[in-house]
Amino acid sequence: MSAAAKDATRAEGTHVTTRSMAEAAKRASRGLAPLSEDRRNAALEAMANALEAHAAELLAASAEDVLAAEHATEKLPAATLSRLKLNATKLAEMVAQVRSVAALPDPLGRTLDAIELDDQDPSTTSGAPGPSHLGNRDQPATNAGLHLTKLSVPLGVLAVIFEARPDAVTQIASLAIKSGNAVLLKPGKEVERTAAAIVHVLREALASVDLPADSVALVVGRERTNELLTMHDLIDLAIPRGSKQLVDYVMANSRIPVLGHSEGICHIYVDRAANEELAMRVIEDAKSDYPAACNAVETVLVHREIATEFLPKLAEHLRARGITLHGDAITQQILRGMEILPVHDWHTEYGELELSLGIVSSLDAAIDHIHTHGSSHTESILTEDPIAAERFLREVDAAGVFHNASTRFADGFRYGFGAEVGISTSKFHARGPVGLEGLTTYKYVLRGAGHTAGDYRGADGRSFTHRRKL
Amino acid sequence: MSAAAKDATRAEGTHVTTRSMAEAAKRASRGLAPLSEDRRNAALEAMANALEAHAAELLAASAEDVLAAEHATEKLPAATLSRLKLNATKLAEMVAQVRSVAALPDPLGRTLDAIELDDQDPSTTSGAPGPSHLGNRDQPATNAGLHLTKLSVPLGVLAVIFEARPDAVTQIASLAIKSGNAVLLKPGKEVERTAAAIVHVLREALASVDLPADSVALVVGRERTNELLTMHDLIDLAIPRGSKQLVDYVMANSRIPVLGHSEGICHIYVDRAANEELAMRVIEDAKSDYPAACNAVETVLVHREIATEFLPKLAEHLRARGITLHGDAITQQILRGMEILPVHDWHTEYGELELSLGIVSSLDAAIDHIHTHGSSHTESILTEDPIAAERFLREVDAAGVFHNASTRFADGFRYGFGAEVGISTSKFHARGPVGLEGLTTYKYVLRGAGHTAGDYRGADGRSFTHRRKL
Repeated sequence: MSAAAKDATRAEGTHVTTRSMAEAAKRASRGLAPLSEDRRNAALEAMANALEAHAAELLAASAEDVLAAEHATEKLPAATLSRLKLNATKLAEMVAQVRSVAALPDPLGRTLDAIELDDQDPSTTSGAPGPSHLGNRDQPATNAGLHLTKLSVPLGVLAVIFEARPDAVTQIASLAIKSGNAVLLKPGKEVERTAAAIVHVLREALASVDLPADSVALVVGRERTNELLTMHDLIDLAIPRGSKQLVDYVMANSRIPVLGHSEGICHIYVDRAANEELAMRVIEDAKSDYPAACNAVETVLVHREIATEFLPKLAEHLRARGITLHGDAITQQILRGMEILPVHDWHTEYGELELSLGIVSSLDAAIDHIHTHGSSHTESILTEDPIAAERFLREVDAAGVFHNASTRFADGFRYGFGAEVGISTSKFHARGPVGLEGLTTYKYVLRGAGHTAGDYRGADGRSFTHRRKL
Repeated sequence: MSAAAKDATRAEGTHVTTRSMAEAAKRASRGLAPLSEDRRNAALEAMANALEAHAAELLAASAEDVLAAEHATEKLPAATLSRLKLNATKLAEMVAQVRSVAALPDPLGRTLDAIELDDQDPSTTSGAPGPSHLGNRDQPATNAGLHLTKLSVPLGVLAVIFEARPDAVTQIASLAIKSGNAVLLKPGKEVERTAAAIVHVLREALASVDLPADSVALVVGRERTNELLTMHDLIDLAIPRGSKQLVDYVMANSRIPVLGHSEGICHIYVDRAANEELAMRVIEDAKSDYPAACNAVETVLVHREIATEFLPKLAEHLRARGITLHGDAITQQILRGMEILPVHDWHTEYGELELSLGIVSSLDAAIDHIHTHGSSHTESILTEDPIAAERFLREVDAAGVFHNASTRFADGFRYGFGAEVGISTSKFHARGPVGLEGLTTYKYVLRGAGHTAGDYRGADGRSFTHRRKL
């Protein structure tokens, strides 16, 4: 084992404190941040190669996890068991995903804004360079004048808490490295052996191309999660990936900013000027394309004027596709004869082939309903009336507002972001589907030649030019 | 009094609960968000006119505050007394500032990104429009295909907690209205009468141009502040403006995201290739231009190789300008004979004509020192060596990284943002000086023609075009 590889395994021991792991991640992040795109992409390639080279060990570790899960006293649901199992096909997909992240555009070093504050140097330094000058005034970085740029940079250290998905390890680690961030990974108990094996391989791969191995580290145990969530001085962003319970827990217990969403109560409003055929297709897709997804629709609001004609057709269409329907009193009245369950509240994320139907008296009432019961995730209006559509798009306060399209499009891949970190219902930092950009912040870089603020003071002071250069 | 004006005064009563005030602000924000730029600018003009028309009442209210402060058992510092006093000149400046905010570019409705997801409509709706079609397919909003735009929108409701500055009321209220946000204003006790009088005038002005009066409301009393800070379901952003104590208190007690900074520990690193004359001018400016500002320098780090030659000149220069110097052991050794106080820690924000001097052995040591002791506010390197400069700018993790310029440039006006909400040392949402943009978020607007996610699934599915249109 090489010295680098030894170094790679050291911090995986259980004797290390959580704080010292976070400190190591912070140090690693300082080393990662200034690396060129080539260096980061080379690391991703090394990670992909190492995963392929160690496939047998990874599958063996997963087999242990599966065996343990099958013999556990508390049985896992079949869906969870299938998700946690690693096989050759899934591993190949994970490797392909690491390579696809490498192929994405670099999120770092982008000039987000550029403003010339002054086009001249202070008069006192405009003469010949003194003895300690290196005379490099031709460099673009030191053009005459005072120049401000807003530059994208990594956040620093991410803490990702996820559940029984081994593929989350490689996906998150590759997004972190691509965006110049270190990452602490806390897997669900059911995939601990697999996650440990993957992280071990990734750390060796990082060390092999001279990147800090501590850029990716495994954190095991619930107490350590709680400790992590208090370390706002070392960790920059917490990302929970999993059930609503997990997300709520992290949001309630974190002193670190949290990226994610705990609920996806998405609405479709069928306006009185909707195309009926279009509405039925879109609603069916929004519910049944993948009912467990956060961007699946939970409530369909129908304008009163078309309710008696449209609702029976819609209900029949949806029931024929196995969708259980709930309805408010008027809906139940209109659909009498059909089995329509009552709506208990308007705030249930079914996650199944199940849907609430409601009647609204106007576009305003629909918007009010959405603001009262929605989770600001994704809301769609179906209408052929462009004025109603534009009002809905303008007035509804949500991460996604759609016209004549399924809520299921709220997704980083479908939006064209290439990779998705998660979907944020917060209004801060990143809203909606979050790609690599959500793992960056920016800094203002100011280049001068001895400029002082006092020179710009008072009636005789210099004036700022404030010319936008982007 | 008009009905609108009566409405304007109603919510100012003390019988209203804090929650119902926040709810009224949320409702007002829903009304504000979709307003055109013209409507918002007209409101700002009405606010400016009303402040001028009611000058006498405002000055009278301020006189009461001043009288109360002068007769209080606990005497206020002279600087605070001068800040809280409103006179005709200051009022004229406040009015001018409201008008200058109106003149700023609109932060809302900007297209931050535009991506074509598909250039075609689903085949099933490409035929002749059905009976419920309105046939408005010529509208740009409903071009063929599936189109995503990322649009800037207001945050919603701001809660601003400030101290003894009456000008903060008009400044914050005008920034809020310009950016389409409602604002709850909690003034310091010493300016309560003045703030109440100003808010009353502003609410009448808003109502007079048919904007919701509840867009601007006054909150009085410390208990109400604490209540506000728990209402994360109604309030989107908390902005503390005042002392470190106030900011720390808000940050520790808020469940709402906080914009601001509690500390400004700014460094200047004098590299071995620095121009001495430039360094002395910049350091003098960074300390003495306005020592109480957060962007004033607190620590100057000098490269070991130039310390014995440069430090005595620098120390003499600064002492001649009345700056008290602290130094580490080596600095004290080099400057023996001068009165150099010890450095207690490297983490004191002096806020006075006082400065810490330290010696570092390398650029790396300077960066380490800054990462260990800095507050990620603003850091500057003084050097004629472009390689050292670029390394510093790239590797230092702070909201502002400067080359050959005074830290005092870290300011929204100097950066060319026109108005400043505050300076953020958080990496989230807004970092560094924050202008109107920091009071906005965005939403993703998707326009389709019945597009369903299922159409893009599987080998026979449609493909996304993902053409960037901006």
